[in-house]
Amino acid sequence: MTPPPEPGAGLAARILTIGDELLSGERLDGNSRWLARYLSNQGFQVLGMESVGDAESAIVSALLRGLEDVDLLVVTGGLGPTLDDRTRQAVAKAWGVRLEEDQHLLAELRQRFQARGFSHLPETNRRVALVPAGARALPNGQGSAPALWFHPARVVDGAFAGSADPPVVLLLPGVPAEMRHLMEEVAAPSIQEVFGASLSPPETRIIQTTGIPESELAGRIEARMAGWDGGSVEVAYRPSLRGVEVALRASGSQAGAALQGVESLLQDILAPYRYDQDGGDLAEAVGRRLRSRGWTVSLAESCTGGEVLWRLTSVPGCSEWVRGGVVAYANEIKGDILGVKESTLADHGAVSEAVALEMARGVRRAVPASVAVAVTGVAGPGGGSPDKPVGTVWFAVDHEGGGRAEVLRFPGLRAEVRERAAQHALHLLYRFLEDPEGGNG
Amino acid sequence: MTPPPEPGAGLAARILTIGDELLSGERLDGNSRWLARYLSNQGFQVLGMESVGDAESAIVSALLRGLEDVDLLVVTGGLGPTLDDRTRQAVAKAWGVRLEEDQHLLAELRQRFQARGFSHLPETNRRVALVPAGARALPNGQGSAPALWFHPARVVDGAFAGSADPPVVLLLPGVPAEMRHLMEEVAAPSIQEVFGASLSPPETRIIQTTGIPESELAGRIEARMAGWDGGSVEVAYRPSLRGVEVALRASGSQAGAALQGVESLLQDILAPYRYDQDGGDLAEAVGRRLRSRGWTVSLAESCTGGEVLWRLTSVPGCSEWVRGGVVAYANEIKGDILGVKESTLADHGAVSEAVALEMARGVRRAVPASVAVAVTGVAGPGGGSPDKPVGTVWFAVDHEGGGRAEVLRFPGLRAEVRERAAQHALHLLYRFLEDPEGGNG
Repeated sequence: MTPPPEPGAGLAARILTIGDELLSGERLDGNSRWLARYLSNQGFQVLGMESVGDAESAIVSALLRGLEDVDLLVVTGGLGPTLDDRTRQAVAKAWGVRLEEDQHLLAELRQRFQARGFSHLPETNRRVALVPAGARALPNGQGSAPALWFHPARVVDGAFAGSADPPVVLLLPGVPAEMRHLMEEVAAPSIQEVFGASLSPPETRIIQTTGIPESELAGRIEARMAGWDGGSVEVAYRPSLRGVEVALRASGSQAGAALQGVESLLQDILAPYRYDQDGGDLAEAVGRRLRSRGWTVSLAESCTGGEVLWRLTSVPGCSEWVRGGVVAYANEIKGDILGVKESTLADHGAVSEAVALEMARGVRRAVPASVAVAVTGVAGPGGGSPDKPVGTVWFAVDHEGGGRAEVLRFPGLRAEVRERAAQHALHLLYRFLEDPEGGNG
Repeated sequence: MTPPPEPGAGLAARILTIGDELLSGERLDGNSRWLARYLSNQGFQVLGMESVGDAESAIVSALLRGLEDVDLLVVTGGLGPTLDDRTRQAVAKAWGVRLEEDQHLLAELRQRFQARGFSHLPETNRRVALVPAGARALPNGQGSAPALWFHPARVVDGAFAGSADPPVVLLLPGVPAEMRHLMEEVAAPSIQEVFGASLSPPETRIIQTTGIPESELAGRIEARMAGWDGGSVEVAYRPSLRGVEVALRASGSQAGAALQGVESLLQDILAPYRYDQDGGDLAEAVGRRLRSRGWTVSLAESCTGGEVLWRLTSVPGCSEWVRGGVVAYANEIKGDILGVKESTLADHGAVSEAVALEMARGVRRAVPASVAVAVTGVAGPGGGSPDKPVGTVWFAVDHEGGGRAEVLRFPGLRAEVRERAAQHALHLLYRFLEDPEGGNG
């Protein structure tokens, strides 16, 4: 009933996460995804992921099932000191081994509790030192639960005994930070030692873009890639409200050259939209360009309600280049602080090129900075009109060389319009900073 | 090898999600969690969740395994029109049935493509009309892929034939919005028809709190609950940077009374921290209180950089009660626009009670409103000092009756300090609005 491993694959792995809270939907299982990405990046093919509850019988059958056709089974959860943590008992039962108290672990635990001022180790915490016979404990360093490294075939006369390449079970605690630490710092060397020679990890390039829809970008890239014959490169698109992340991935000894080739091939398609060369988040990329010019920025926001300022001030050290700004939600504020003329508001309406330009000029006077950006639009759900429907947003930039403005119409609900508009304001500023005197911002 | 269903449980379900992107960690599997919560809320016990890739053999064995000990198997993904969508083929193979073209579906598809201006149905999209013999198609209404409802025991002489209660396989497309729509609107009646009589859905009360750590809240609640004997109620805590959500859950005919009893029992513990009676998000709750008084608010933000304004303006219809505000990141802005005195900044520093109070008073003058809130603090990573370490944040409220201020020290990194501080500013305003003239805000 179990299929053979996928043909052509290298080493195979499965992931098993344990906890009643996963099955009730109380908690999102971020560990599975993190492990899937980690193992894939190491070169494993992940064949499946499973989650079961804390019942011992369910864990036992999931363990046996999970190990059937793979080289590595990574298990998280159920390793804590409380009674509903039953993973070690399940391992012992699944392979018919005894649980033994690991004297090293026990000594370490005692020491940790003494250091915290306890006179003795609580009886419940003693369970953490129990290890299935034949398993190796990998001490945690950050918490009390260790990782366990277990070769079922080496300790019992079971289904795996005598196999040339016996699979490994790696047990990790379920607390995400501890799990990641143990995987990356503690278990990684054992994985390399046992599997390293057979693994060929893929190489990856991540390219951040904004301002172009996924379908449009994918269309242009696929058309260009049709003529490519410099080695297999997989292209994945991860769209979000802030833009599209393009992931290039290749395996084998020519991977680096293939990725480099594809990146050059796509260079002119990506250039107008990419910002990853200046930082992971667009706000960071903007900050680097401002700093390199020795410039500062101030903002006047209406429909985005402070989101652009919030994004910019989320960058550590931003006080060097963000001065602040004004959130002018009510129209009178646009007049009082920003100096937008009553006649401009009356003639053009709050969502207009003229008002956006006056807001940008006004905030650069009220909150003095080298450059200022203004955003005014209709985020919805109310406030739309036939010629200014929900999603219409005007943007303006102002600096000593003058101002410029542009308008976009964003799809989606209020929160989406606002997030897209804030991202576009940052992108407008980013493009402007590349060539402040040029005509095409 | 397969364990029996958990004793004492009612109906059991499993969830199977299909897609290579899940196994590479490219995409977080939000569908599993959503389905787990949905099915639990309907009264099913979810025994496990599994994810496999797009290979037909892997899907076949996961289908057979998933149905072994349950009443309902919900499968998502692999139902689209492209070649890597192999779920319907796998179902046909697993139970030895043929795929048949559903003429109703086909006619519907043709109509939809004609409405979009296509002269004929593309050959690839025709696959969406293929249905395993014996399965019932539940039309989607939102997209092109339907849900499929399948009773394996009714169509083949397999392991389930003759069973008194044959399990059901429900197949849903993987696009989250479509999947949820189909589950809630289209499949729900069939689930009720088949399983309704045996299901006893738990009742739930969600209580939103902020301003008290999870451990402290849980300690107080558990101490109080120790004396409770009015029926079994499960209490779960879901902490986030914005506070702790307390979920009370009970089953059976006395569930409503038990929940009511526990809520009354905990009333005085929860009262100072809960805000759910005024809306799901604290910004919404603040908006309701402002509207009911006919009041408006303006903000002066420093370390939160616009986050409080952004939260408030995320509420639809907020223009009725938010006027706007000033993000005074640089000290000079605090003076120029908000009128914070140079001597106050020099004598007390920017992060101080005196500056917070002057900022609140100043913004209420600059951006006229019934009440104003100011936030000034050290978000880190730089800027801390021995008497004002990173995480120190001063808050002030000002209205015609005068001003009041308070200080907190938040743990965590820059983003956490900012989010906690923004939430606290909203909570301060929320408490103030309960009793603006009272002494204890």
